[in-house]
Parts: sequence; C-alpha cells; structure tokens
Amino acid sequence: MSNSLRIGIAGLGTVGAGVVKILAERSTHLTAACGRPLELVAVSARDKTRDRGIDLSGVRWEDDPMALASAGDIDLVVELIGGSEGIARELVEASLKAGKHVATANKALVAHHGTALAQAAESKGVALNYEAAVAGGIPIVKAMREALAGNEIRSIHGILNGTCNYILTEMETTGRDFADVLKDAQDLGYAEADPTFDVGGIDAAHKLAILASLAFGTEVDFDNVHIEGIEKISATDIAFAKDFGFKVKLLAIAEKSDDGIVQRVHPALVPEGTPLAAVSGVYNAVAVDGDRVGHLVLEGRGAGEGPTASAVLSDIVDIARGLIVAPFIVPATKLKAPARPLMEAHKSSFYLRLRAVDRAGSMAAITRALAEASISIERIVQRGGKGDDSGRLPVVFVTHETDESTMARARTLLAQHEDVAGTPLMIRIEDGELR
Amino acid sequence: MSNSLRIGIAGLGTVGAGVVKILAERSTHLTAACGRPLELVAVSARDKTRDRGIDLSGVRWEDDPMALASAGDIDLVVELIGGSEGIARELVEASLKAGKHVATANKALVAHHGTALAQAAESKGVALNYEAAVAGGIPIVKAMREALAGNEIRSIHGILNGTCNYILTEMETTGRDFADVLKDAQDLGYAEADPTFDVGGIDAAHKLAILASLAFGTEVDFDNVHIEGIEKISATDIAFAKDFGFKVKLLAIAEKSDDGIVQRVHPALVPEGTPLAAVSGVYNAVAVDGDRVGHLVLEGRGAGEGPTASAVLSDIVDIARGLIVAPFIVPATKLKAPARPLMEAHKSSFYLRLRAVDRAGSMAAITRALAEASISIERIVQRGGKGDDSGRLPVVFVTHETDESTMARARTLLAQHEDVAGTPLMIRIEDGELR
Repeated sequence: MSNSLRIGIAGLGTVGAGVVKILAERSTHLTAACGRPLELVAVSARDKTRDRGIDLSGVRWEDDPMALASAGDIDLVVELIGGSEGIARELVEASLKAGKHVATANKALVAHHGTALAQAAESKGVALNYEAAVAGGIPIVKAMREALAGNEIRSIHGILNGTCNYILTEMETTGRDFADVLKDAQDLGYAEADPTFDVGGIDAAHKLAILASLAFGTEVDFDNVHIEGIEKISATDIAFAKDFGFKVKLLAIAEKSDDGIVQRVHPALVPEGTPLAAVSGVYNAVAVDGDRVGHLVLEGRGAGEGPTASAVLSDIVDIARGLIVAPFIVPATKLKAPARPLMEAHKSSFYLRLRAVDRAGSMAAITRALAEASISIERIVQRGGKGDDSGRLPVVFVTHETDESTMARARTLLAQHEDVAGTPLMIRIEDGELR
Repeated sequence: MSNSLRIGIAGLGTVGAGVVKILAERSTHLTAACGRPLELVAVSARDKTRDRGIDLSGVRWEDDPMALASAGDIDLVVELIGGSEGIARELVEASLKAGKHVATANKALVAHHGTALAQAAESKGVALNYEAAVAGGIPIVKAMREALAGNEIRSIHGILNGTCNYILTEMETTGRDFADVLKDAQDLGYAEADPTFDVGGIDAAHKLAILASLAFGTEVDFDNVHIEGIEKISATDIAFAKDFGFKVKLLAIAEKSDDGIVQRVHPALVPEGTPLAAVSGVYNAVAVDGDRVGHLVLEGRGAGEGPTASAVLSDIVDIARGLIVAPFIVPATKLKAPARPLMEAHKSSFYLRLRAVDRAGSMAAITRALAEASISIERIVQRGGKGDDSGRLPVVFVTHETDESTMARARTLLAQHEDVAGTPLMIRIEDGELR
C-alpha cells in the first residue's frame, strides 16, 4: 500500500458521507483506474456519534480538522466544511502550506480567496482542485481547465443555482408565486431556511467568478460580479415571457467586452428553443462559447450527495493519477487583474413590467415618458380586465437595445409618474449568444 | 526548449491544419497552461505543395508518415490520416511500439483495434488519447475516463453523427424527403459523396463502441453493435412523430441488460422536452446516466476543423501535463469480454408505419393480424385522403412494449398481408431513460 494516495476528509455531511461511500464501494475499480489505491486515512467532523450510514472502522477520527493538515500520513485533504472564512479557509491554507493536495467543494472559499490559494498551491507544487464547487456533478471545471485549452473563450452563460431554477420552473408550471413556491422548496429541502445565498444570486455569483477566471485568465474577482436575485419575479412575468416565446432563468454570465470582463448574475428572458431555456427543475447547465469548439453545453445535477460526491471523486482521481494543473490554468502570478467594465454601459433589450393606472390617456402618457427617456419600444402588451385591488393593470414593454444607465433613468422617471404605481420591474433579455 | 513536448502530426487535412494553427496562435497560453512548450517538430501529408493557410517554416516535412514513429526527436505522434487499416493503423502501432505517445481522431481505428492498441500503449507506459474520435469538440472521452470515475454507468444515449442529425432536422423543418435533403447536405459539404458511413449509422456505431467500452469496462466490440441507418425515414414519419410529441433522431445507445451490454444505433422516436430531442442541425450530444451523478448531458459540435482540433489539443495538453490514463480507464488486460445479448430480446414500444389498401375492412384485417402476432396497439392514426399513386394510405400504429422478435414476426406477416403494400417501417420509441 506504499504507493496509495492517502486521503483525509474534513466534513461529513451528505457530500462527505457520499465520498466515503464511493471510496469504499468502488475501491477495486478506482484502484485499477488510478493505478494505485485510494486510501481513506482520517476524517474529521463535528459529531462523532452521528449515524451517517458509512463504515469508518480503520479510519482515524480527528476532532480537530486542522490535524489533517499536519498529519504525516496524509497526501490529500478533502475540505467539505464550507464557508469562505473560518476553519475551512484555515484548513485549506494550512494543508497547502504543508505541501498537501487539496480538493474542495467550497465555492465561497474559492470565489473569495482563489487567486491566493492558487499561489499557495503552486508554490508547493500541489493540486488545488474544486470541481464540486461549480455546478455539482457537471465536469465544467475539468472542461475549462483541460478540454478547452485550445480555445479562446468568448462567453459563459450558466444556470448555476438549482434552487432558483427549481423555483422558477415550479412557478412556470403551476402559476404560483415566488414566496409560495419558495416555502415548498424549503419544506422539500431544495432551499435553505435562510435562502438569501441562493435566491439572491450570491451562490451563482460565487460559481460565476470561478468560471470567469478560468475562461479569461483573470484573477478571481467575486467583488465585481453584478448580482440580482429572483425575489421580484412574479408568476405574471413568467406568463408574459412565455407569451413572447421566452423562459425566465437566473443566468450567470461572463463575457468579454471592449473594456474588460463583464460578470453578471440576474434573471433573464431566454428564448425557447435554446439549450438553456430547456433546463428545468434542479438541473444546472453551462454554455461555453469558444473560438474553436463553438457552443458547448453541459447539463446535469448541480447539487446533492451523489453529483457532488462524483465531482469530488473526479478531483481525487486526477490527483491519484498525478495530474497537477495550475488551479486557474496558468500560474496564478500570470493571472491578469481584471478590468472592470461598469455595468451601466452594458446593453441589452429589456422586459419592463409596470402597473398602470386604469384611466383614459395613461398608456399614451407612459409611452411618451419612455420616449422622452430615449427608450425605444418594440412591443407593448396590456391585458385587460385584470387590475389589482387598486384597479391598476399590468403592462409589459419589450424595448429595443439600450444601455443600463438609460434604462435606470427611465425606471426612475416611471416610478415618479402619476400613471404608474411603484417602480417598474425590469428583466434583461438574453437572445444573442445562446445559439 | 529541452523540456518541450515534441510533436509530429500525420495528416494535414482541415483538422490537421486546425491543430497547427492552434499550436502557433495559442503558443504562449499553451506553454503557460502546460508548464512546458508544445513544439511542432515534423509533419507528414500527401501533398507538400498544397496551400493549407498554415506556416510550416522550421517544421520538418516527412513524405513518409512512418518516419514520425521512428524519429528520435518526437515524443507524441498525432494521427489524423483516418481509416481503420493501412497507414493509419501501421503508424499508430509503430509509434506506440517505439514508446511514443499517440493522439488520434480516428474513430474507425479505435473502434476496430482499440483494445489491442490500448495494450500496446500500456506496455510502454505511453498515452493513447482519442478525444477527437468521439463527438468532435464535446469532451465526452475525458468526462468518461476522468470525471465520472466515481460512477457506475447505467446507460449512454448519444446523437453521434452530425450529418444524420442535420438531415433529420432539415427534413423536419422543410418537410422534404431524405434523398432530397441528402443531396443538399452533400452540396454543402455536410455529407460525403459516399454517405454510407454516416447515414448508414456506421460512423455513429464506431463512436458508440468506444463509449460503451469506457462506460462498462468491456473490450471495444464494434462487431456487436446493432446498426440501422436513417435511409428509410420519410418526412411523413417525422410529421407523424411530431403529432405524437416526438422527434426522430439517430440514437446510439449502450446500456446494461441482464445478459450483458446492448449496443445499438438506429432511428428512434425521442420525446419532445428531453435534452436529446432538442439537439438540432449538425450538433452532437451525449447523455450519460451514472449512479451518482444522475443524468449528465453534453452537447456541442461533433465535427469540423475547430471543434475537432480543439479536441486534439485537449489530448495534447493532457500528455504535456503528464497525465497518462489507461486508454479505456482500467488496464486493457482487465477489460471484460463483453457478453452479447441478442438484439431479438430487446424490448421497446414501436412506431409502425404501413401503407394500407383503401378498402372497407382493411383496417380491421390489419389490426386483427397484429393482434394475432401478439402486438398490442396503443394508438392508431390514419390520415384520410392522402393516398399514394396506387390509392394506398399511410397508417401508423404505436405499440405497447414488445420484443424485437415478436415485432419482426409481425412485420413479416404484415408484409405478406393482402391489405398491406410493402414491408412496414418500424421505429423504436425511446422514452424511458432520457429523464
């Protein structure tokens, strides 16, 4: 067993338990596939007594996860604790410093500290693998780091949060509203008790920041991701979008602009018939546009024990086979500081829903206000008879292409308009790059 | 440059030229990504004078590709000649024997001789990489060999031939018939002058045999693939299928049965709303069902200079980084001889189209014949008024699940039936495993 890869796992939640199960159940295959045994030497978790349905006999238990970083008999530390700071960060830093390989599923950690951690890994010649941090079981990190090396990447469009996609799909199929479906998702375990990270777009932004670095050779730059969540999307919007031939998705987009790398997470109208529009329920998907490969779309389960453990195993197997890739493809010292184009300059067409006062002349006044704000209208839809308690009717405008700052001014004007109740809801339309 | 990976390329068609271009244009990035330069040392092709739009100054020209296998200054031979026998096979065998790594886009070679070539590579400790042999730019070989190592694979469903998918998509959107669309595809360069390998399903079967070996740990077994092409599919079938909520696709399927590994390539009715049904035009896609990861779908361009060269680069980069994986994951000597279940035992529901004589009582007679043949009917569609020159009307039956041998007997009976003209066309319905 002297040539085995000796593994320590910190964190035994569902994913950690899933990894332990695969190592045990597929041991013979994995040894043959790697040319050496994968040996689970030690684990660490908070509660030693909990029944996780796994056999840990012969595996050392460490109450302190930091013991894994200093253990002389461990080659690879698998970090499954989570969180961008605290013990997870300390453990990964200490493990790399001690010259141990690290595999982690921790998207927040990599999004916030990826560049520095990559430098630490490279200075010791060890791996920092994080396949499970992005899109669960979808091998998108491997695709970006290895398979697409011959390509200059033009853009990435992802559905990277299964909770949001589940909620939006449910809203679409049942016609129920956000709060209602969210509660169900929480009851089913698809959404956390505090759903902010998911529905607010932060989780998707963590993953996007990682993918953007891989795509464009820039430092991981989570702070510059423009983030909007799905909280304001209503069943009405989804129904209107459907009438127009679109689905509403929370998209995570990274693309090159003349000024640098745009990173943005927000709800978007995606044309039906494109691969991303067809991604339903808890599924994730990533569409990569490369100059040689063209459009490549990977779709699969973005979370859960099996898919995430599958991704962790991918990282472990790579290390066992001796593949050490710079965490962000090129040495971290060569990653470019990302230029940060202002979101205000971003252009697209927009879906704009507002509640109009139901009086003669209100539509004329509103369209005039939009024209004065330099917004050119492609389409107006007003559905009669369905006013809210105050007799206001939903009106939807689809605009021609305009920039964010013009749209922001228009929304401010409309919010103050006597014929409009509240601030209009805006959803960007993404119909260009998705094939 | 002493640590560079020294490359020889045999074959400078569009793919070979594409590889040369990427090596030149992305040289800086590739050196940074691999930690060493990728150095094109020599090339060999038939016509030295042809203008390929590439700069070969400083690159040795070999009239005889076999010189690459024996050259002392080459570490990796890239075989882009094609064909399962002849010079391509000789070159790959000689290169491996000489202890050189090999990357190839040659699906026929790997499908016919994969197991033996893998043994040759493993005995010398070199790589035999063939990402470009399956589904062009889609990194499915890497996904199977590396990313999914933690999974037991349950099935693979692929759209692996872009020519067929283009033809079927065109037939669907234009209502034109096979021969007509094929001719256009030939004029556009999407189909070969002799289209047999593509439209007959052989090309897809080559790729499927490779994927099946990767999925199930069995020897590559092309001879046991059940192959049917798309030649008999008519626009009528596609229209009927659409009415039933299906698309017609040439599917390549490998799955475990109680008796072994079933490998089959044939037209199939795929339910709309599933990922594979949405794959249109020249795109390829592979849906993998793994016990941990669940359904994973990869979609992209399956052919052409850019996508195929991108895949060849993936293979080259892996070798430069020192990743040597057994060609079929586990050592070739451990690959199991595949048990070969008979296609006759395969079960599915079927689409059955026949031309019925237009007389009172003919439908009753035909349905009675089907009942006598133990075929249970789920649905019958007859379109009135549209008879052919002889007054025969297309009638379509959708059957409940039955086995192939029962269906074969029924078709033979119907072909002899006085109320039926010709042998009924049968298309399998695949609605189980696609999510």
